[in-house]
Amino acid sequence: MTDLKNDSLDLHRRHQGKLEIRSKVAVENERDLSLAYSPGVAAPCREIHADPSKVHDYTMKGNTVAVITDGTAVLGLGNIGPQAALPVMEGKALLFKEFAGVDAFPICLDTTDAEEIIRTVKLLEPGFGGVNLEDIAAPTCFIVEQRLKQEMNIPVFHDDQHGTAIVTLAGLINSLKLVEKEVEDVKVVVNGAGAAGIAIVKLLAKFGFGHIVMCDTKGAIYKGRQNGMNPFKAEVAEMSNYQMEQGQLADVIAGADVFVGVSAEGALTESMVRSMNEDPVIFAMANPNPEILPHAAKSAGARVIGTGRSDFANQVNNVLAFPGLFRGALDVQASDINDAMKIAAVEAIAALIATHELHEDYVIPKPFDPRVAQAVAEAVSKAAEETGVAKVSLKEPAQQIVL
Amino acid sequence: MTDLKNDSLDLHRRHQGKLEIRSKVAVENERDLSLAYSPGVAAPCREIHADPSKVHDYTMKGNTVAVITDGTAVLGLGNIGPQAALPVMEGKALLFKEFAGVDAFPICLDTTDAEEIIRTVKLLEPGFGGVNLEDIAAPTCFIVEQRLKQEMNIPVFHDDQHGTAIVTLAGLINSLKLVEKEVEDVKVVVNGAGAAGIAIVKLLAKFGFGHIVMCDTKGAIYKGRQNGMNPFKAEVAEMSNYQMEQGQLADVIAGADVFVGVSAEGALTESMVRSMNEDPVIFAMANPNPEILPHAAKSAGARVIGTGRSDFANQVNNVLAFPGLFRGALDVQASDINDAMKIAAVEAIAALIATHELHEDYVIPKPFDPRVAQAVAEAVSKAAEETGVAKVSLKEPAQQIVL
Repeated sequence: MTDLKNDSLDLHRRHQGKLEIRSKVAVENERDLSLAYSPGVAAPCREIHADPSKVHDYTMKGNTVAVITDGTAVLGLGNIGPQAALPVMEGKALLFKEFAGVDAFPICLDTTDAEEIIRTVKLLEPGFGGVNLEDIAAPTCFIVEQRLKQEMNIPVFHDDQHGTAIVTLAGLINSLKLVEKEVEDVKVVVNGAGAAGIAIVKLLAKFGFGHIVMCDTKGAIYKGRQNGMNPFKAEVAEMSNYQMEQGQLADVIAGADVFVGVSAEGALTESMVRSMNEDPVIFAMANPNPEILPHAAKSAGARVIGTGRSDFANQVNNVLAFPGLFRGALDVQASDINDAMKIAAVEAIAALIATHELHEDYVIPKPFDPRVAQAVAEAVSKAAEETGVAKVSLKEPAQQIVL
Repeated sequence: MTDLKNDSLDLHRRHQGKLEIRSKVAVENERDLSLAYSPGVAAPCREIHADPSKVHDYTMKGNTVAVITDGTAVLGLGNIGPQAALPVMEGKALLFKEFAGVDAFPICLDTTDAEEIIRTVKLLEPGFGGVNLEDIAAPTCFIVEQRLKQEMNIPVFHDDQHGTAIVTLAGLINSLKLVEKEVEDVKVVVNGAGAAGIAIVKLLAKFGFGHIVMCDTKGAIYKGRQNGMNPFKAEVAEMSNYQMEQGQLADVIAGADVFVGVSAEGALTESMVRSMNEDPVIFAMANPNPEILPHAAKSAGARVIGTGRSDFANQVNNVLAFPGLFRGALDVQASDINDAMKIAAVEAIAALIATHELHEDYVIPKPFDPRVAQAVAEAVSKAAEETGVAKVSLKEPAQQIVL
């Protein structure tokens, strides 16, 4: 870990950050200058002024995503502020480019006020094709995302919520195939009612999981619970736990088929795993240390175990989702990233592992699987078109991601 | 012109704009990912959180400038809006990179309200090392620049005002050397009281020009004039026209040594030039067509004529100033771009033409003169240090601009 720390500091110091802005056109003489800048640049300006849709033909807008944070929930570091969050935002932008050819730029906002974040991001819309919200603490992240989705004409996506939910669901689909259980039948317990947990419950419910119980530190969330509730948990209570189960995690985990943890190290014990149904599937995604370590989960009977870590099998890594998702949305000038597009991404990720390749240690594709972004992008573009949020049709044949 | 238009449209369409965002570090495997992103990226985040000055060591902030517009005064096109302004902002950002290695990013704001622009730009401060305001109409540009300079800790510069003023003054210094007149003695008439004109008057007054008369469409501006005034013209009246000259341009130009036009095509006639003092110096910078054409000015007796155009001699091109100016400011983490830094840039640009090289058609260096940005940067860094706005000292020997 010391090596990783020092190597990372060296890397960041050597390059003074990780991103640069480059010209795609040469400017070496008067003629180049007159085409790329004054007076020639007036021509595309006039075209766009006359027909705003042409901004996609003549500018970077259509391929550019703002990676926006207020620095309140950065990695596992918490509220370290917008300036200290910049290395993460640069890293995120870099992944957008390396994995899907998307130009992403970090915007670190010096405010934690939801209304001020909303107003600011809306004012940035002319230059961007999409907005990726990043590392904004709950509940602000919910408010900001919901309002921006309503009030902007470009896709807005909070990766900490939906990126995690998409990859988790893809892994769950493959896990259930492996253990031969059906989505409608299984009981899923989601532990941790933060941004990711709530998004996971919503996406699972949307996908058809009928028996979900979410727990927070007060135990199971059910309709009418009095303590430790908020509007977002109340929404969860409406779409899960129809049996009105009560009690702590240790109580509701008994008989469950799936555990999804977005909580804290050690939250899931071996005895809890033993109390689960046959062939338990565990996604223990607390960072940096999972709710239960893979060997402990296995020794307690877990059939499949996924974590957020690259040094274990089945890594739930958002990089499987967001680059291709935005690639697909941008390619058809989508005005939104809706549930159909998210589920299309889920299914594209899951389908990359053929049934005969599936096994306990391979229910999620590897982050560097070169097929992922392209497969996700195509599925997402198609879903955008089918749900009427695409402004243009995907060029045929599908665009190749060239990096 | 048709060729230029079509070639420019082709260029913009072919590349879908002109800028891209690139990674400076390789991300090809798990190890790379763990250094540039999670979990290794936590190390620079922690360092910056503990000591905010380290943001300059570990991130792109220190080399990154926001190019900000509201789209209200774009080139000669006027108020075409923030989205249609994007090609110009991309072009500007591209020049920052090509001429001085500065990473600049276009921010096109969907508001024309001064307070909203101010608030938004302030909220963007954590990720940027400087702010270049661009193509914002007067008087909003004055209000926005003044407030941001007061309220931000990074340099804020409105190029349409000060970039033009810097290059004009550099050209005037060399022109006066050529005609053997002194700054204190000459009468300068500045025609056009927009953003550039007012900045020119201020910089000339600061530099020591004692006899300046500014004209707008109502004629000479003087203290106490009643019609067509505003607070910015009132400020001009305080620092110029001490003789309280009145009348139209045709009246006050008589006997003047220098004409500076930032007004409109045809504003300066041959007979006006004939009414000027011996060896008149004319900077006719209206775009795209100057106040008077060079051959007409020459035939009426002008000794030196400069314009904004690349197809005539003595082009007043802001690209001589802003790249090196920001390079110099960023290199010492300057908190401001003050008058001393602007004048240092002026003198550095003027000094690039040795006395024996000076002639009527060469009082301003060429835009692609490779010495310009470096010379300006060094002079500006030094002036920043001398005036106490530099946070760090310029590395010795001076950094080379490597492109």
